[in-house]
Amino acid sequence: MTKSALQIARASYEPKIPEGLRGNVKIEEGASTESVRDQEEIRKLFPNTYGMPIVKFVHAAGKPGVDQPVNVGVILSGGQAPGGHNVIAGIYDGIKRLHADSRLYGFILGPAGLINHEYKELTGDIIDEYRNTGGFDIIGSGRTKLETKEQFDKGLEILKKLNIQALVIIGGDDSNTNACVLAEYYKSIGAGVQVIGCPKTIDGDLKNEQIETSFGFDTACKVYSELIGNIQRDCNSARKYWHFIKVMGRSASHIALECALQTHPNVCIVSEEVEAKNLSLDDVVDYIASVVAKRADEGLNFGTVIIPEGLIEFIPAMKKLIQELNDFLAHNADEFNIIRRSQQREYVIGKLSEANSKIYASLPERVAQQLTLDRDPHGNVQVSMIQTEELLAEMVGKRLKKWAQEGKYNGKFATVHHFFGYEGRCAAPSNYDADYCYSLGYTASLLIVSGKTGYMSSVRNTTASASQWVAGGIPITMMMNMERRHGEMKPVIQKALVDLQGAPFQYIKSVRDKWAIETDYVYPGPIQYFGPSEVCDQPSKTLQLEKQGK
Amino acid sequence: MTKSALQIARASYEPKIPEGLRGNVKIEEGASTESVRDQEEIRKLFPNTYGMPIVKFVHAAGKPGVDQPVNVGVILSGGQAPGGHNVIAGIYDGIKRLHADSRLYGFILGPAGLINHEYKELTGDIIDEYRNTGGFDIIGSGRTKLETKEQFDKGLEILKKLNIQALVIIGGDDSNTNACVLAEYYKSIGAGVQVIGCPKTIDGDLKNEQIETSFGFDTACKVYSELIGNIQRDCNSARKYWHFIKVMGRSASHIALECALQTHPNVCIVSEEVEAKNLSLDDVVDYIASVVAKRADEGLNFGTVIIPEGLIEFIPAMKKLIQELNDFLAHNADEFNIIRRSQQREYVIGKLSEANSKIYASLPERVAQQLTLDRDPHGNVQVSMIQTEELLAEMVGKRLKKWAQEGKYNGKFATVHHFFGYEGRCAAPSNYDADYCYSLGYTASLLIVSGKTGYMSSVRNTTASASQWVAGGIPITMMMNMERRHGEMKPVIQKALVDLQGAPFQYIKSVRDKWAIETDYVYPGPIQYFGPSEVCDQPSKTLQLEKQGK
Repeated sequence: MTKSALQIARASYEPKIPEGLRGNVKIEEGASTESVRDQEEIRKLFPNTYGMPIVKFVHAAGKPGVDQPVNVGVILSGGQAPGGHNVIAGIYDGIKRLHADSRLYGFILGPAGLINHEYKELTGDIIDEYRNTGGFDIIGSGRTKLETKEQFDKGLEILKKLNIQALVIIGGDDSNTNACVLAEYYKSIGAGVQVIGCPKTIDGDLKNEQIETSFGFDTACKVYSELIGNIQRDCNSARKYWHFIKVMGRSASHIALECALQTHPNVCIVSEEVEAKNLSLDDVVDYIASVVAKRADEGLNFGTVIIPEGLIEFIPAMKKLIQELNDFLAHNADEFNIIRRSQQREYVIGKLSEANSKIYASLPERVAQQLTLDRDPHGNVQVSMIQTEELLAEMVGKRLKKWAQEGKYNGKFATVHHFFGYEGRCAAPSNYDADYCYSLGYTASLLIVSGKTGYMSSVRNTTASASQWVAGGIPITMMMNMERRHGEMKPVIQKALVDLQGAPFQYIKSVRDKWAIETDYVYPGPIQYFGPSEVCDQPSKTLQLEKQGK
Repeated sequence: MTKSALQIARASYEPKIPEGLRGNVKIEEGASTESVRDQEEIRKLFPNTYGMPIVKFVHAAGKPGVDQPVNVGVILSGGQAPGGHNVIAGIYDGIKRLHADSRLYGFILGPAGLINHEYKELTGDIIDEYRNTGGFDIIGSGRTKLETKEQFDKGLEILKKLNIQALVIIGGDDSNTNACVLAEYYKSIGAGVQVIGCPKTIDGDLKNEQIETSFGFDTACKVYSELIGNIQRDCNSARKYWHFIKVMGRSASHIALECALQTHPNVCIVSEEVEAKNLSLDDVVDYIASVVAKRADEGLNFGTVIIPEGLIEFIPAMKKLIQELNDFLAHNADEFNIIRRSQQREYVIGKLSEANSKIYASLPERVAQQLTLDRDPHGNVQVSMIQTEELLAEMVGKRLKKWAQEGKYNGKFATVHHFFGYEGRCAAPSNYDADYCYSLGYTASLLIVSGKTGYMSSVRNTTASASQWVAGGIPITMMMNMERRHGEMKPVIQKALVDLQGAPFQYIKSVRDKWAIETDYVYPGPIQYFGPSEVCDQPSKTLQLEKQGK
């Protein structure tokens, strides 16, 4: 591995940890807990892990240490997020401090590694190579879901063979849900293996009263904001393009919102608002076009629009259209497939219900074609393939042309598109994520040695300086409710969508009309690791506003 | 303007300047010079500015200063490049140091500002707002070409009115060529206005024996390399995608090459090599597909491919196809336009020469359509609109399918595309560009006060520490030769394409087979401004290798 100069210099960074964890610690247990909803069902499904207390670690007299080595397995689950390596480093340092003979095993390429017994021991040499780096390449990640008893039993074989006392699963809401199901199962059969979860996802939608943020969100948003800022500076220099910028986040718009808070674009669409207001695609196009037109009146024929990746799936009318398309194509596949490609669109328009037919007819040709042709193996429309940034740019252009003909708009409209996702998922963690992740991993080791299972590692009060951070564990069942998944009611961790009453969105709402017309771009620049604290150590704007809002 | 924390902290950075410029300076003149080629013609076209000596500034006794204020006008010409604001700050500080009553005027939105008499005085307050920032937004930029006598005379009116002694034009090869034509003209009529050029372009193709590099190249490449590194870390963690990454650079592949030197991708295409070897699109596809197949043999179904934006225009066979398409469509527009869209492709295939018809038929449908439909106002095919990264990914996919059927390939091939350009043009300048640009501007002020015109500001030996940098001026005519432009022979600055015998390309050539198969990715991370010197102050790898190669 050839290392960059920054990587070499950054390797020696020592993540900050909560002051309380520095010496010996003791555990403080709170009152028993309930799930956020559907308490009856959840309790029934998790008889062994329901109702456990929130726990907290505080300083204690004496020296840290245990009699027996603590062997731990770790899994990286799902999409990459900056800081995963530091979680692992935190676990390693934690168990080594407790007992020098402790061992850490990493399962390869996600949960599949556990099932297929593919693992490697993560020794100090390996860990040191990965401290403060981005990526999940230390052991790789994967999307296999740990759900069945067969998988659990297969996994237990290797855990037992390696004498592993606890498994740490680093993942998003689904992976943590599965971690809890696994914890419950192992406890129910007396397997003697604990399971601890860690909140990961750049999307920022795994958070709640107890979990302030998921790791990786901070870094990824900072990378995207760097790029958006650069584009805005270009935009404001060349003064001739509208940049349509899509950012990752299929289920929630936290990333778009955070990037907007950091960069002050002219437009930021928030999917949750679109859904709540029951807006149509047409309404969204209208809104953007009206901002373009207002700026054109001021002679400003340039601007920026931030779009969350998941937008299309949040537009109620589009959801209905896609549903009808899926049904219709499933039932009329043979007839559809023999129609000439150039006539398929007309055919579909003629067959859909009036409302959906109208929407379908209004879509640009390429998108309409994509909806009927690029279907997944089950024949379903692949919404994620739609290039929403291009779609909106094209529709806004058409709207403006119409307005120009009606004498309502007199400007120039040229567009450039961008999509940022992979650019940020594996960035080297910001100081915030480096510290937060290391602390999450370190805390996981303490939960393990305290005998806990079915807990998520938790570090709170992270907008304060690290010395005031509070480390502990949250029973995963506490975050659960019942939701329909693939037609079945399942216990799952509630996904945190953007709260339209929350401080971050309310702030955007209060300033967006100003940002739309004026050019108040902010240029955050690249993440800094060595500069003054106000540059290097700021938590996300979202988290800061949420804290202030409380 | 809301400022980011980094912007505020970075404002106080004091760019390094060549030691020789710190106190008073004197000018040292070398022998008279000749143009790189076509000496006769160039001498005839530039009777007043041909043959001037290279000049150098060295320390002198005494205090710096002149009797009269030095009023200067400045123009930002063409595409944005990081550091433009520092060139302007350097000019400002330079003329203010010479005389406190000197004034600096910025012409608005490029050369058009000079012609239309749109300007603003750049006072100390304004300059301070823009020190060490990216973008050209201090006065904006534009692409109007300063070429005609009418424009020159119109410009002179305002220059005279503002009592401006010299005009600094910050631009690429074309803009500097025009700066020299303007210098020659003003000298020939005794206008009393000097013209000085500054070498700007992220593309890095304005360089030669005297100009080590154009500003902005360093920063832009570092931003792209940050992103490519992040993508590679993702790629190496998820292990399931081939990322096709196009980077800016239509005329030369310096950016692609520099990014490859910084990140060690599996494949980096260099347009100049493709042209020199007379490769076809098919050959390029074959090469990439063979790397994919070899990695698949090792179980590595992921990788990265860097593609220069201008590739298509460098493929000799594609150039011929496009030429024939342009000719054919120009002469058969009426017939072509009445053909149904679904039959246009067949029609074109039937009409082209055999060789071109075969190539056209091999192109993916969308690209073929783009070539005949998306033409510019003159009816010409718009090569720049072709999404080369998608085109190559699709064609490589087809090739691999064929190989799979023939039993020659057994892997998985899924792709993601990226294009990086606007993301880097307005980034805040790296230390290198911040220093280099400031020194270029500062040096321009010294050239002005030395009475020079038709010179490009020059700062050399920039791979050494700034104290050893050498400041001076190069007669622009010295870099010129005659080239055909729009059917006419014109004096122009020779564009610097990638030198296939040069050290940077030779280095890539010596390691690329290894990089192709092994995974030797480097993750440069974001530009740092406050850390250790080995992280913050490195010039581009290209420049370092070029220096070592000498």
